[in-house]
Amino acid sequence: MIGEEIHKLATRLWPLNRSLTGDGVRETLSVLKEHLPQLTYHEVPSGTQAFDWKVPKEWRVKQAYITTPCGKRICDFAQNNLHLVGYSTPVHAKMDLAELQAHLHSLPSQPEAIPYTTSFYREHWGFCLSQTERENLKEGEYEVLIDSELFDGALTYGELLLKGESPQEVFVSTYVCHPSMANNELSGPCVATYIAKRLSGLNRRFSYRFVFIPETIGSIVYLSRNLEHLKKHVIAGFNVSCVGDDRAYSFLPSRSGDTLSDEIAQHVLKHIAPDYKAYKWRDRGSDERQYCAPGVDLPIASIMRSKYARYDEYHTSLDDLISVVTPQGLEGGFNALWRAIETLENHRYPKANFLCEPQLGKRGLYPSLSIKKSGANVRLMMDLLSWADGRRSLLQIAEECEVPVWDLYATVESLAEHQLLSLLDAPLENA
Amino acid sequence: MIGEEIHKLATRLWPLNRSLTGDGVRETLSVLKEHLPQLTYHEVPSGTQAFDWKVPKEWRVKQAYITTPCGKRICDFAQNNLHLVGYSTPVHAKMDLAELQAHLHSLPSQPEAIPYTTSFYREHWGFCLSQTERENLKEGEYEVLIDSELFDGALTYGELLLKGESPQEVFVSTYVCHPSMANNELSGPCVATYIAKRLSGLNRRFSYRFVFIPETIGSIVYLSRNLEHLKKHVIAGFNVSCVGDDRAYSFLPSRSGDTLSDEIAQHVLKHIAPDYKAYKWRDRGSDERQYCAPGVDLPIASIMRSKYARYDEYHTSLDDLISVVTPQGLEGGFNALWRAIETLENHRYPKANFLCEPQLGKRGLYPSLSIKKSGANVRLMMDLLSWADGRRSLLQIAEECEVPVWDLYATVESLAEHQLLSLLDAPLENA
Amino acid sequence: MIGEEIHKLATRLWPLNRSLTGDGVRETLSVLKEHLPQLTYHEVPSGTQAFDWKVPKEWRVKQAYITTPCGKRICDFAQNNLHLVGYSTPVHAKMDLAELQAHLHSLPSQPEAIPYTTSFYREHWGFCLSQTERENLKEGEYEVLIDSELFDGALTYGELLLKGESPQEVFVSTYVCHPSMANNELSGPCVATYIAKRLSGLNRRFSYRFVFIPETIGSIVYLSRNLEHLKKHVIAGFNVSCVGDDRAYSFLPSRSGDTLSDEIAQHVLKHIAPDYKAYKWRDRGSDERQYCAPGVDLPIASIMRSKYARYDEYHTSLDDLISVVTPQGLEGGFNALWRAIETLENHRYPKANFLCEPQLGKRGLYPSLSIKKSGANVRLMMDLLSWADGRRSLLQIAEECEVPVWDLYATVESLAEHQLLSLLDAPLENA
Repeated sequence: MIGEEIHKLATRLWPLNRSLTGDGVRETLSVLKEHLPQLTYHEVPSGTQAFDWKVPKEWRVKQAYITTPCGKRICDFAQNNLHLVGYSTPVHAKMDLAELQAHLHSLPSQPEAIPYTTSFYREHWGFCLSQTERENLKEGEYEVLIDSELFDGALTYGELLLKGESPQEVFVSTYVCHPSMANNELSGPCVATYIAKRLSGLNRRFSYRFVFIPETIGSIVYLSRNLEHLKKHVIAGFNVSCVGDDRAYSFLPSRSGDTLSDEIAQHVLKHIAPDYKAYKWRDRGSDERQYCAPGVDLPIASIMRSKYARYDEYHTSLDDLISVVTPQGLEGGFNALWRAIETLENHRYPKANFLCEPQLGKRGLYPSLSIKKSGANVRLMMDLLSWADGRRSLLQIAEECEVPVWDLYATVESLAEHQLLSLLDAPLENA
Repeated sequence: MIGEEIHKLATRLWPLNRSLTGDGVRETLSVLKEHLPQLTYHEVPSGTQAFDWKVPKEWRVKQAYITTPCGKRICDFAQNNLHLVGYSTPVHAKMDLAELQAHLHSLPSQPEAIPYTTSFYREHWGFCLSQTERENLKEGEYEVLIDSELFDGALTYGELLLKGESPQEVFVSTYVCHPSMANNELSGPCVATYIAKRLSGLNRRFSYRFVFIPETIGSIVYLSRNLEHLKKHVIAGFNVSCVGDDRAYSFLPSRSGDTLSDEIAQHVLKHIAPDYKAYKWRDRGSDERQYCAPGVDLPIASIMRSKYARYDEYHTSLDDLISVVTPQGLEGGFNALWRAIETLENHRYPKANFLCEPQLGKRGLYPSLSIKKSGANVRLMMDLLSWADGRRSLLQIAEECEVPVWDLYATVESLAEHQLLSLLDAPLENA
Repeated sequence: MIGEEIHKLATRLWPLNRSLTGDGVRETLSVLKEHLPQLTYHEVPSGTQAFDWKVPKEWRVKQAYITTPCGKRICDFAQNNLHLVGYSTPVHAKMDLAELQAHLHSLPSQPEAIPYTTSFYREHWGFCLSQTERENLKEGEYEVLIDSELFDGALTYGELLLKGESPQEVFVSTYVCHPSMANNELSGPCVATYIAKRLSGLNRRFSYRFVFIPETIGSIVYLSRNLEHLKKHVIAGFNVSCVGDDRAYSFLPSRSGDTLSDEIAQHVLKHIAPDYKAYKWRDRGSDERQYCAPGVDLPIASIMRSKYARYDEYHTSLDDLISVVTPQGLEGGFNALWRAIETLENHRYPKANFLCEPQLGKRGLYPSLSIKKSGANVRLMMDLLSWADGRRSLLQIAEECEVPVWDLYATVESLAEHQLLSLLDAPLENA
């Protein structure tokens, strides 16, 4: 079961301190490269301009914890990297509890959870802990240590291009900036890695471009360097995030909502999970915000399991690899994405080679004795032929026939072998 | 009542052995020609290529029956032509019951029905009988006689062109290949004959082309000879089948679903039978399969009573002229089709001759004393005028007004007489 | 409260004998001119041709009443101008009750109401009275006096142009032909006057053209003189009628139903009165019949309170300024129209100035500490930016965001100040 393998990869990546920048990202990419030898790294120097943004300083943490008045070490970054607010500035100071409280973050509504908190673009330091632990803190002098560094370094991202027969590209983007959390977001890079791994062993009609980036600034930096190429070549793509739990399937559209990616994602989900949750553009929150921004307008949709910000454990220490993300959940996320890619590879426009219905009987494709009922398979074959006008895609024909598109592949192959059908790469123009 | 006359015609045609080819077809056409003197016959030689098909051999049957071990003659073709599988090859042999069973067809779920079975494109012989009769067959030696012939002859079809003011054509197609069954299909050719008969006595705006053909191979042969002409001239048309029982009204669209024929058929049915059953393209099963095939794309829809394959007696001896097809049923089928043709003849684009509302009062068209409520007729006249922009057809205006289009004819005539309205053959272009 | 002021204006105009023509119209306009000094009058001579119509004679009434057999004066025009059928010809005669009855109008279903009746285009005289009063009339000799005159005079209308930065015009039309009735129709000219008054004190992007006209013949005359100008300049407009009671909000579309006026009116009503009544074109009955006629096709919709012909008191003496039209009702009508005008003035196409999301944090527009939930205001700002592709109007963006467009004005202003957004007058073309 591929879900088990993906879960193992996630477990291995779990403890690394991923953030917008830094060695946690580099270590993560180096593990992925074991699976994807063609993966390349890119280092973009701090201060580089990217549209309205600048690449931030690189962040490095050696250690961080608080010592309580009775000498106990708490909020230890070495134990859980969520304890430290992301991009915390260095500090080494003693202070009373009141002063410390201004730098603590917890969630009263989820008293056992350590929240995930960052301060990427404003200088700040802080610690995150459970509400329960926080309420037990006694008055007295606390010693705070954050041995961190913000310096002119680089933002690191990974990129993988799997060339296909066509220079047209399918674009797959996922995150490597979240520290120890599972659905959002170790599931994305791990599932994307296994999708790329499977694709690398197959003949591909399209080229596939995978990027492993930090959220927001990563996609903005990537777009600032590659926008023209992407606009010219990308025909479809997916933002891969939150594909690891087994509690729901979700769809988030591109901004326009009518791209090939949207069409495929909705078709796949309708057939593998009829009760999937269809979100709207207003519910967005991941890198589609950049990929579908005005003037960028790439055809990027999202197929997810439980969507970010819509499950209780989101952005807390409760989003783990035990109770939230499971091998079954990852397997489901992988399979849905794989169906989408398979649908893309089969995205063609069938065109019947004969006027009127062909005589299937003489080719052994039709029961020659007319009886009151003929089988569903023959019916589906006839339906497919009846729509094969070179103007409708196979996907649209599947929609007309109310079957999953993959139920048509064998029939298409058989009809093409018998020279009854041609498969066009682009639709016929109206006469 | 025209339904009575149509029923009489069907009764007269009932016993003839119609099939894809043969004298049963010719005899049927010669009876129709008594009603339609301009009807012409066409003979297409066996072996003639038509797209992916070849015209089959002609089939002639002299006699066919089985003699039971006790000497009783059963499955006698002379008594009911459904007893013989269509296109049965000749045979004269003795065999035991086990061997005979492989050539018998019956319907366990309808034990009193003789099923309709054919084997047009694979050599075969067989008999059809009721399940009840079959279960009573005893062991012993049976003598089978089929005195039939398959020979290089011709496929026969009838054609009638009623020229109108315009060379634009309305195309009406119906079957003459079904032996003794009533709704599917003596109702079609009989109703079509009476439609043609009525049209032949009237001034016609459009030309009307009727074809009386065998199903599938007939329409394919006809299209292979006339496709360019039809594509150029046909503006609307109907496949006339299953128009004889009084239990339902049904609509089956063209493939595109948005032709003038579809628009008219749905409008007519909505107003004469609001609970009519609207089928989809996937439910097709008659010659629209050829007329609307990719690349053919003629605007052909179907107005039916109970649709083929959707009523219990379909394709069995139970589909008769007594309990299934009735004068009332035929009358209803005729009237629905006639309304459609009347709607076509009135298909024009009204254009008001004045800017702003005209002053109806000075023409005696409006109550000059303004009171709290004015009548529905005046309201309808004003509504019609308000939509008369030369861009909407009268049919579309009727849809806007939520009335049957025929409720507007008198008003249109009155407004045209008063020079308030012009009737355009084609819509105005957008300015 | 502006509703109180409008109600006072209506009360002052109440007793004037408005009709298609005459001094009642002129007196009404002269009162409005006190509020709108730039208001101009136009006099169009009787007999002037206007499309299919001719301007009627002018009507003047000195006195009109009936003297009963016992000498009582009833149906006195001086007491209520509804007692006299509009455009009654002069008469002075004695007659018995039977003869008189042919000239009396009352409403059996509303026994206390005096109906509003006119006979503009057929010579007639008559009186209107309550059914109760009519039933009490005794046999005997009645003396009828109508001291009226129909003469070659003029049709009078008022017009006001408030020039804006753009020569593009918003067209507002209302009636001055209804005598003493309140919702239909003193509410229209009174609310329109206060809209014009408020607009005259503000900077205007668009020019605003108000016309105060008699219904039907007035709009036809106006269009016959100004059609080319209006077709070239008018981008939106409203017919202002029935805007005075507090029992409902109503919308009546333009004929095409998809103009900017329709879009705005429906957006405004959806947000201020979610249960508003949406009528269809077939329910029309006011001057949209002319403004939206084929070939005229101006973008004119109607925002109303209780629509004409759809409330019990309509066209009777019961449509008064006490129980039907109230200050609250007028205030609601004024506010709805004002929201529509404000929406028009803000009708632009926002275009983001940066590719990808801008960095709001560095501008103080975004909470820089990422926490689990960010506020609704920031969300709305991000949503607006995400749709700001220069192809969608602010109104369409509000629809996407499911908020009233006025909830976006402050955000638009802030983003424009920060140079993050441009506001285009026309949508970008597709690339």
